[in-house]
Amino acid sequence: MQVMTSKRYQEAGVDIDAMAAALDQAKEEIRATKTPGVLSDIGLFGGVFDPSLVGAGGECLVASTDGVGTKVRIAALAGKFDTVGQCLINHCVNDILVQGARPLFFLDYIGTGHLDPDWFAQVVHGLSLACKENHCALLGGETAEMPGIYDGDDFELVGTIVGAVAKGKILDGSKVVAGDRLIGLPSSGLHTNGFSLARKILFDECSFEVGDHPPELEGASIGEALLAIHKSYLKPVLPLLQKERGVHACAHITGGGVLDNLPRVLPKGLGAKVLTNALDPVPIFPFLVEKGKIDQQEAWRVFNMGIGFILVVEADRCQELLEELEKAGEKPKVVGVVEEGEGVRLED
Amino acid sequence: MQVMTSKRYQEAGVDIDAMAAALDQAKEEIRATKTPGVLSDIGLFGGVFDPSLVGAGGECLVASTDGVGTKVRIAALAGKFDTVGQCLINHCVNDILVQGARPLFFLDYIGTGHLDPDWFAQVVHGLSLACKENHCALLGGETAEMPGIYDGDDFELVGTIVGAVAKGKILDGSKVVAGDRLIGLPSSGLHTNGFSLARKILFDECSFEVGDHPPELEGASIGEALLAIHKSYLKPVLPLLQKERGVHACAHITGGGVLDNLPRVLPKGLGAKVLTNALDPVPIFPFLVEKGKIDQQEAWRVFNMGIGFILVVEADRCQELLEELEKAGEKPKVVGVVEEGEGVRLED
Repeated sequence: MQVMTSKRYQEAGVDIDAMAAALDQAKEEIRATKTPGVLSDIGLFGGVFDPSLVGAGGECLVASTDGVGTKVRIAALAGKFDTVGQCLINHCVNDILVQGARPLFFLDYIGTGHLDPDWFAQVVHGLSLACKENHCALLGGETAEMPGIYDGDDFELVGTIVGAVAKGKILDGSKVVAGDRLIGLPSSGLHTNGFSLARKILFDECSFEVGDHPPELEGASIGEALLAIHKSYLKPVLPLLQKERGVHACAHITGGGVLDNLPRVLPKGLGAKVLTNALDPVPIFPFLVEKGKIDQQEAWRVFNMGIGFILVVEADRCQELLEELEKAGEKPKVVGVVEEGEGVRLED
Repeated sequence: MQVMTSKRYQEAGVDIDAMAAALDQAKEEIRATKTPGVLSDIGLFGGVFDPSLVGAGGECLVASTDGVGTKVRIAALAGKFDTVGQCLINHCVNDILVQGARPLFFLDYIGTGHLDPDWFAQVVHGLSLACKENHCALLGGETAEMPGIYDGDDFELVGTIVGAVAKGKILDGSKVVAGDRLIGLPSSGLHTNGFSLARKILFDECSFEVGDHPPELEGASIGEALLAIHKSYLKPVLPLLQKERGVHACAHITGGGVLDNLPRVLPKGLGAKVLTNALDPVPIFPFLVEKGKIDQQEAWRVFNMGIGFILVVEADRCQELLEELEKAGEKPKVVGVVEEGEGVRLED
């Protein structure tokens, strides 16, 4: 992260001193995410990482870039900015876990019209916290003030994760066969997808405010339900992938829902039946479906509908994997089965 | 890159079909950037890369995230979107070159209010072209439509590069001593920094339009001068770093100019004298300084002032390195010297 200072530049709307102060405040937290692989300090042009120092020498790299989308709008409405940083890291961790990889390092990008040291510190706190939880170094990042591109409290929070997996352990779905069971792991809420539609339904159409507590949300406010932290599935799932335990593929249920994400990891000629009622979703999902009068196909394409992650597993080993996941603190459910055909068929 | 399709989601302002069409158009170009290290096709959750297949097995990774900032505003004004993609890649390539690394792969992120297939295809064309030129695979990326965050033609173009360098070849500036010469390589223009100020001076204060041809720009229009492609210094510089040729450090002159970027690679206790007239800058620099009445310190902190990249080299080997860079097609100039002290002292 780079800091400039310049009077004339400030006149153009770029407040460089505020950025410097916020960065100083954040540096200690970023340093605390260091793993033995990190060879560089903050402030260099690039972050340097030696995979061999964390047991990943000679392994393949898996990389993914993603953002938290308009979830930042909810954060701004609620004045609570730490959770979106955690959402971003956990989202990216799950994206590479799907291919069997564990995190090595992460680089973030924050674009904003005007950097507010308070929310910036909260965002970095969230990023750092989730990095530590996932044993992922926050290796670098960039913060850009671009007045005119972003209005008011808006900002963009995206990042890139790089992880590692031994070549022989890459999960590519090629072992999936008809009859494989689908184990679903519960999501905590919308995770980081579907916020454009959720905001339209709840704020534009129903005129809710973030502090409202509709009874359907069972105690949570609108803001709390929407900001629920995107879960990382690294801890329960990774141990099942590192040994041959009968996991044939994984799908992270992000934008596009189960309907679009599950087929991404199924071989040609195979589809799946998914049971819509196998897993009790958190209350925000039935609430959104009812308030928005969303039909089922639509709902399962835009939202994760309570299923954050799916493991496609050998039928014979399904029970044993369910027990293992329960021991790891998860509440797994069989949510469907792989079948001949293509695409996902929902069944009530 | 992930594509969704959903009627209800479209009502919320997310045009998914247009994105799908634009992605299809771009996929072939992205595939053409493949290097032997790429193990994955487009559309998976993460991109998979095996460093050992490109001779980087066992090396350290160097990663950097950056964006092109408000240069996209100029692209929108000029209706020309291919160069910003090249700028982004070349910027990131230079950032890791500073530490001795060559590119392995890149992941891009495009955030926009509304994806226009035309400009999207141009941006991806630029990204792909520059990736090929730098032997860098375009391994993945994310495109997000976020109506409400971005207005009109605005978009955000950022990305992350991952490269490799043998552990013993990492350039960290530790060998720099007083008396080392600074070799400057010419920039093509602003590269990707200082656009907030340039736009303020040229458009807000001087009321120029992108199509105007002020005589000071020697034939170029305002738009052409501002959109000049950020140069990649990989080809002339990398060969000098791979063998022991007396290069002690490199600095990529980005936001913060020579004044902020050169000190980033000098050891504590060392500063530099930089000659402001050693290298003839392209005409946009004197033009901006004159029109904006910017003082010298300010100009050298916001703009690269004609110097895109600096090599800090052993005095005795300076002449030989200059000749080598000339053979590689560069127009290098000695622009200063390392001295005791701290910071950069400008001298006319």
